Amino acid sequence: MRPDNLANLLTRLRDGEISVEEATDALKTLPFETLGDATIDRHRELRQGFPEVVYCEGKTDEQAADVICKLAEEGDALGSRASRRTFDIVRETRPDAVYHARARVVAVPCKERTRPIDESKYILVVAAGASDLPVAEEAAVIARYMGNRVETAYDVGVAGLHRLLSRVELLRGANVVVVVAGMDGALPSVVGGLVERPVVAVPTSVGYGAAFGGLAPLLTMLNSCAPGVAVVNIDNGFGAAAIASRINHL
Amino acid sequence: MRPDNLANLLTRLRDGEISVEEATDALKTLPFETLGDATIDRHRELRQGFPEVVYCEGKTDEQAADVICKLAEEGDALGSRASRRTFDIVRETRPDAVYHARARVVAVPCKERTRPIDESKYILVVAAGASDLPVAEEAAVIARYMGNRVETAYDVGVAGLHRLLSRVELLRGANVVVVVAGMDGALPSVVGGLVERPVVAVPTSVGYGAAFGGLAPLLTMLNSCAPGVAVVNIDNGFGAAAIASRINHL
Amino acid sequence: MRPDNLANLLTRLRDGEISVEEATDALKTLPFETLGDATIDRHRELRQGFPEVVYCEGKTDEQAADVICKLAEEGDALGSRASRRTFDIVRETRPDAVYHARARVVAVPCKERTRPIDESKYILVVAAGASDLPVAEEAAVIARYMGNRVETAYDVGVAGLHRLLSRVELLRGANVVVVVAGMDGALPSVVGGLVERPVVAVPTSVGYGAAFGGLAPLLTMLNSCAPGVAVVNIDNGFGAAAIASRINHL
Amino acid sequence: MRPDNLANLLTRLRDGEISVEEATDALKTLPFETLGDATIDRHRELRQGFPEVVYCEGKTDEQAADVICKLAEEGDALGSRASRRTFDIVRETRPDAVYHARARVVAVPCKERTRPIDESKYILVVAAGASDLPVAEEAAVIARYMGNRVETAYDVGVAGLHRLLSRVELLRGANVVVVVAGMDGALPSVVGGLVERPVVAVPTSVGYGAAFGGLAPLLTMLNSCAPGVAVVNIDNGFGAAAIASRINHL
Amino acid sequence: MRPDNLANLLTRLRDGEISVEEATDALKTLPFETLGDATIDRHRELRQGFPEVVYCEGKTDEQAADVICKLAEEGDALGSRASRRTFDIVRETRPDAVYHARARVVAVPCKERTRPIDESKYILVVAAGASDLPVAEEAAVIARYMGNRVETAYDVGVAGLHRLLSRVELLRGANVVVVVAGMDGALPSVVGGLVERPVVAVPTSVGYGAAFGGLAPLLTMLNSCAPGVAVVNIDNGFGAAAIASRINHL
Amino acid sequence: MRPDNLANLLTRLRDGEISVEEATDALKTLPFETLGDATIDRHRELRQGFPEVVYCEGKTDEQAADVICKLAEEGDALGSRASRRTFDIVRETRPDAVYHARARVVAVPCKERTRPIDESKYILVVAAGASDLPVAEEAAVIARYMGNRVETAYDVGVAGLHRLLSRVELLRGANVVVVVAGMDGALPSVVGGLVERPVVAVPTSVGYGAAFGGLAPLLTMLNSCAPGVAVVNIDNGFGAAAIASRINHL
Amino acid sequence: MRPDNLANLLTRLRDGEISVEEATDALKTLPFETLGDATIDRHRELRQGFPEVVYCEGKTDEQAADVICKLAEEGDALGSRASRRTFDIVRETRPDAVYHARARVVAVPCKERTRPIDESKYILVVAAGASDLPVAEEAAVIARYMGNRVETAYDVGVAGLHRLLSRVELLRGANVVVVVAGMDGALPSVVGGLVERPVVAVPTSVGYGAAFGGLAPLLTMLNSCAPGVAVVNIDNGFGAAAIASRINHL
Amino acid sequence: MRPDNLANLLTRLRDGEISVEEATDALKTLPFETLGDATIDRHRELRQGFPEVVYCEGKTDEQAADVICKLAEEGDALGSRASRRTFDIVRETRPDAVYHARARVVAVPCKERTRPIDESKYILVVAAGASDLPVAEEAAVIARYMGNRVETAYDVGVAGLHRLLSRVELLRGANVVVVVAGMDGALPSVVGGLVERPVVAVPTSVGYGAAFGGLAPLLTMLNSCAPGVAVVNIDNGFGAAAIASRINHL
Repeated sequence: MRPDNLANLLTRLRDGEISVEEATDALKTLPFETLGDATIDRHRELRQGFPEVVYCEGKTDEQAADVICKLAEEGDALGSRASRRTFDIVRETRPDAVYHARARVVAVPCKERTRPIDESKYILVVAAGASDLPVAEEAAVIARYMGNRVETAYDVGVAGLHRLLSRVELLRGANVVVVVAGMDGALPSVVGGLVERPVVAVPTSVGYGAAFGGLAPLLTMLNSCAPGVAVVNIDNGFGAAAIASRINHL
Repeated sequence: MRPDNLANLLTRLRDGEISVEEATDALKTLPFETLGDATIDRHRELRQGFPEVVYCEGKTDEQAADVICKLAEEGDALGSRASRRTFDIVRETRPDAVYHARARVVAVPCKERTRPIDESKYILVVAAGASDLPVAEEAAVIARYMGNRVETAYDVGVAGLHRLLSRVELLRGANVVVVVAGMDGALPSVVGGLVERPVVAVPTSVGYGAAFGGLAPLLTMLNSCAPGVAVVNIDNGFGAAAIASRINHL
Repeated sequence: MRPDNLANLLTRLRDGEISVEEATDALKTLPFETLGDATIDRHRELRQGFPEVVYCEGKTDEQAADVICKLAEEGDALGSRASRRTFDIVRETRPDAVYHARARVVAVPCKERTRPIDESKYILVVAAGASDLPVAEEAAVIARYMGNRVETAYDVGVAGLHRLLSRVELLRGANVVVVVAGMDGALPSVVGGLVERPVVAVPTSVGYGAAFGGLAPLLTMLNSCAPGVAVVNIDNGFGAAAIASRINHL
Repeated sequence: MRPDNLANLLTRLRDGEISVEEATDALKTLPFETLGDATIDRHRELRQGFPEVVYCEGKTDEQAADVICKLAEEGDALGSRASRRTFDIVRETRPDAVYHARARVVAVPCKERTRPIDESKYILVVAAGASDLPVAEEAAVIARYMGNRVETAYDVGVAGLHRLLSRVELLRGANVVVVVAGMDGALPSVVGGLVERPVVAVPTSVGYGAAFGGLAPLLTMLNSCAPGVAVVNIDNGFGAAAIASRINHL
Repeated sequence: MRPDNLANLLTRLRDGEISVEEATDALKTLPFETLGDATIDRHRELRQGFPEVVYCEGKTDEQAADVICKLAEEGDALGSRASRRTFDIVRETRPDAVYHARARVVAVPCKERTRPIDESKYILVVAAGASDLPVAEEAAVIARYMGNRVETAYDVGVAGLHRLLSRVELLRGANVVVVVAGMDGALPSVVGGLVERPVVAVPTSVGYGAAFGGLAPLLTMLNSCAPGVAVVNIDNGFGAAAIASRINHL
Repeated sequence: MRPDNLANLLTRLRDGEISVEEATDALKTLPFETLGDATIDRHRELRQGFPEVVYCEGKTDEQAADVICKLAEEGDALGSRASRRTFDIVRETRPDAVYHARARVVAVPCKERTRPIDESKYILVVAAGASDLPVAEEAAVIARYMGNRVETAYDVGVAGLHRLLSRVELLRGANVVVVVAGMDGALPSVVGGLVERPVVAVPTSVGYGAAFGGLAPLLTMLNSCAPGVAVVNIDNGFGAAAIASRINHL
Repeated sequence: MRPDNLANLLTRLRDGEISVEEATDALKTLPFETLGDATIDRHRELRQGFPEVVYCEGKTDEQAADVICKLAEEGDALGSRASRRTFDIVRETRPDAVYHARARVVAVPCKERTRPIDESKYILVVAAGASDLPVAEEAAVIARYMGNRVETAYDVGVAGLHRLLSRVELLRGANVVVVVAGMDGALPSVVGGLVERPVVAVPTSVGYGAAFGGLAPLLTMLNSCAPGVAVVNIDNGFGAAAIASRINHL
Repeated sequence: MRPDNLANLLTRLRDGEISVEEATDALKTLPFETLGDATIDRHRELRQGFPEVVYCEGKTDEQAADVICKLAEEGDALGSRASRRTFDIVRETRPDAVYHARARVVAVPCKERTRPIDESKYILVVAAGASDLPVAEEAAVIARYMGNRVETAYDVGVAGLHRLLSRVELLRGANVVVVVAGMDGALPSVVGGLVERPVVAVPTSVGYGAAFGGLAPLLTMLNSCAPGVAVVNIDNGFGAAAIASRINHL
């Protein structure tokens, strides 16, 4: 409820168009209206430019598929960390569903809602090694569904610096860079020194023993000596897509 | 060195205007020129919109002041985590130096370089409690020197939700929100659910025993259930300012 | 053995009704009697208002079912973290057994012992997200068997604050609130600021990498900036039910 | 603002007693009113039975004293972790201030507000060893100012079990038990097995190396094998008092 | 080789009974002989009173059985953490093999070597809960094979103190006490206060989330407030048996 | 109260020598008497062979001295981690006090109580490096006051193996070996392989960064590949003395 | 591109042998050439003396085999952490492939490229226990493929010191020693004290609970009291081979 | 004692040149002789090319100076982590002492022993930032005293890659590279990809909160994605010098 709506309601009450009871009822939900249209989650897609994303891990394939299908009845629906079997079940109900295998993302996009994407600026998703690709792809695929142009530069880890340096133009042209790396997690520091745009770092759980399930690259990234780097959770490609998309839509 | 410069150099060589030796010398630095103007760090301020910032902690007051003064000879100079005594020493050389006591920032701004700030968009720095203010102020003060309009909302921790809700308009008007919190670090999750813009979370080392020097709010923020949140290092107000400024300057 | 029993025993000895040997034997167990009726664990249900609960994890289905059935011979019997197969085995012996699938609780309640529940006050079990439900349900189901009225408010995580605020009356009416949350674990801090009653926080092991199996929400809750919050072990729905029931029975 | 107030406001508007503008202004703060009287923090003491408590650690003596004195202008004021020097500064302004040295608590109680304490039920504060006393006393002193009868049983660590057992009656008579222990943190498990009332466990940072600043007893308490135990932060006597008081006031 | 053996060897050389070459060969192994009879591991059983113990975890059933059978050719052979299938394979070769299922120990004892056990003193193995039994039994079974009288007291966790107190005589009669506990690991502290003999504490990996695989009871035990307690590795029943046996054989 | 005392009391009651009230009173303290003479801590020295030891760290010099002097009124008194100033204050009251500077132990031994020490067996305290000496000396000095013959072998770290091997006879002659080591904590594993007696390992907090205040040697020792090693807390020389003394007195 | 090549290129340009465009194109790749022949990874084997090694863990058997076969088309190809099934698939394409079962290494060596190995110096791979063999073998096998003579000394853990001491000559003759150990990780400290050559320590994830997946030996090794020891990641036999080979090829 | 010596001794015994007693005595020390000249630590400098280094941290200035002076009586003496005051005390006895302030190293070199340094190969010490200089200098200064040519490249952190790339020739010319870095610790990975020689990585304790005293760069370096990197302890400049010197002296 916006301020003018509030005044309007009160005016109608004063003018006897509605009763005190009706006004009281209307006002009871005021806190949520005041908090904004956040109340009606159905509208989140419209407001924030991306659909609800279902986190499938920890759910059975049936449960995951069920939630995705329900969501898909009213708009775009995405499922992250989705198995192929989840996709197969979704497809029974929604033959228009798509599966991005490497990203483990199930999507039921409703074409008519697709807004035009601003191609003049892009999110660049950078990944250090082959094992970081599932997370990088999760970020890239979801960011595209969120309405962004997305470019990628994979297998450009710092141990072979020339691979990264050969992409300097791609790096510098990006509006925001998502950097995905496991093991030593050193890539965001190097990228952060090469670009002037915000860098979103994503540690992955890939690596030998002392990587401790992603703790090592997480700490590396938090301690990046390059300014302009912020970090999301381990393996959280979705989270990286979410903030990168928010930045890119500014 | 940009491509046209390279062709130009080669043309002058071919035309005999410069010798092979001169060309060889010029080309030896090519990798750095190719990497861009990053080579000449003196130019970083011009490129990135903010001056070099000296991290004073771990340096003696004399060392810190010395570095700041040297830097100040060629442009803006900032010192973070600076003691008042560092400031006093700087002021002997630079009477135009300024000390932001709560933020522990020493600044020697050179007026003539100040670019106009775009007042139509602002970074909002939110802090949960009184003990988080030094870090929040470090972020706010440095972000201003980086050429941003900065607003603040302090003492709005989640244990008294009404304090935060009364700033909803301020929150929603921000281009990017920096959220500073210690102890439970819960504030970014709540803020992330209220705004549609990127949220940069800064854990602080404030708190009882099991805060473990900021580990607790750091983990909280990395695990934020609200999308659109990324995290910088514990107590790293400067780091938050750096990425928020990069975002705000897009 | 209560003090009057002790005097009674001694009087009977003095009066020659029992021999010194009989008195000595009776008194040998005195320490335990003095420690209270705790000695006879069969009586715990009567004293503490809830039956022994069998923790089935780490036992084979057969072992778990066996212990539950033995216990059920003398009163209520509950099994937590029980698989459906454990339930199936129990039901062979006890057709009156019940399985609460989401809570993973097997129950063999003996009706005649059921005491009337005080409906005027209730424990409220609040859960942040869908993945926290098994733990929340374990708390709710067990608390009911412990003789409490239990209400629930699920899926009210802080990233969508309106969902929680719409339950403010339910929150404020509770005698004690159990708050179950994984990931950032921020919910108890917000709830603790909204109610004036004791809050029992339960971290869950749900979440991306840096949740570290529940460590993140555990630390968050221990560092809650809201007064009136205490914490039980990760995923420990039973433990939350136990202390909430003790509080509610005051 | 309570519901009847809302209806009353609307009735007055309908009846022309106040203008639409006045009604709009009044309703603009509705969210907070709806959130309850929480809005006016000054009233927290009345609602929750205890005054605002100032956490003095991390503040200078002058800052801490200043906040306490301001608070004391409108009601009871307590400062925890307060040095004697903070107390001395407070006393210059408020000669009626009191210092609880062992508990490190400064208090400026305003007599007229003191409500009668229900002496029929008490909080029992139990401490394992001499080094746990500052935390235990912080809990005891603050709980008393929160309007509770408080009893104490100190130096009853589990290595000399008889010391604890000799207080069994005191233990069993308590309405809620706060157990403070460092080192092995084993005391709450033993107490939890002896009483049927809720137990609030407080780990302290006392101990040899592998206590790791309180981590050891914290984990011990979270893993207590006795039901009915919940845990607050390391050294957090205030937090224990807060939840124990909430429980005792039920 | 004992000193007299050395002199003997040299005398035989001087007297021409053996050649220089023979003496050189004999002395080449001198370092090991000097280090003690440790050199010939086959003799370890004779010296130390217990056979080599094969740690079967991490080996295939076939590998484990193979090592046990080889060892059994020359004396007693024990396998810890042995599956029933490992036992079945061993039994094909050695029909006299025995399987202690709860302790997961395979034994091929050679009767003729069995030395008389001193029944006048015993190792007491105490376990807190049912889930600690596999580790407790591993300690008890192996300690018996090491030539000790072993008594046990199981299910005497501190949450039901009377269970432990009813065994006080058994506790006080022991020469050395092994205490096995998971979860809060509080039992050794209580036992350490009740007996005057050395206590060997064994943390187990049993417990809810924040037990962190045995870290919680490990820290508890290391921080035991009772003197006379030392700790072995998590779940290390064999290690506890080894040191308890060394102590008991003094 | 020993069983015969109990029967005696009851006989006197039956025979009318004491009243029921007197018997009741006498029996009320039964639990503690049943727990043994533990009740009267003054008798601990007599029973356990060593006096109460006051842990001075965390106490002011005055407090520490005060407790030591009180204790010294009735027998031996020891203070560990005692500063020289604590000693100076003690000496004002007790000129017979002694200060062991390197061990940081204050002692007020009462000669007449000294029991003869069995010189035929000894505790050997082994220390890896010079920085481990304060802890080693704390163990050695206290073990001597506990009535043991103590030998020492210092500066025998594994990086210079010959230093340790030259003491093999001293090692093998010991009844129990206390091994103190920081940094890599490798010494107990080597010692455990050389002797057949129990080894008590004490990690110290000495070392470069990744020693993490003693965590590194603590873990090393817990994971010792040599059987017969148990571990006490970091820097806990007193704890090592206590268990070594218990073992040596068997 | 070496400096003389650069001058040569420029001379040819000046002399009109190539056009400005051709020179520009050639120079565009200069950064990589300047960075050295690193650009062309195919040449790595020639430069560094060892082929690309494929880390198979985390890949499906098919993926792993596919990468190995592609690599093998142009030279030596190694796969570490390779299952036998991966090997079987590789062998279908490359019948000359070899499987080192214990080391879990698949190799497709191309004989003609094999350079002569300098037999006068060797890498010694030392392993503490049987469970460390897979990692030790990975190091040994890969180091051999990297063109080194490799010797091994297995099962020489410090708990039986004589086993290590009997290999002193082998130890002292090595050019560089790789020490593989789990559990207490004490072996490198002892070896570091016996040899004067560089020691590369490899912690393994073998051990009881408090080994914490290799954390314990990792910390032990980092804190080695012997100089001349450096550490690689947990279970990282390949990493040890890589640095040992670099050292041995000096 | 080498084998021929042994045979010689035995021959002399057989021939009656020495008595059995003399032979027995000579053979008793055999183990140490077999262990080599390690027995006589005074000879370590001669053997290993560097003097004993005294670790001064944790010692009083007087103690540290005392040990250094004693050592200096017989050869080179170095003290690491030495304060200027320690140096001042040393200089009173040894006016030829030198203090390396930034490296915190005191040296009393005895000129006559100085061996010629092989200038054809050098150790390169690389440091990421200004705060890493004390550790880098400790490594460089000590490595020089160990008889190596040492070059340095400071302030070449990865956030400004051009700084590092401009030293590529210096990097590639080194025989072994020591890389010192705090914060993100990313530098060794980049260096490891640029050179073909062994890289010794040294994490430093420099950095914001989540560097956790050097844990972050330690983990980064252990997980380096570049082959050929091994790691020493946090801030352990001495340790890096020791292994780099061993490598360089091959």
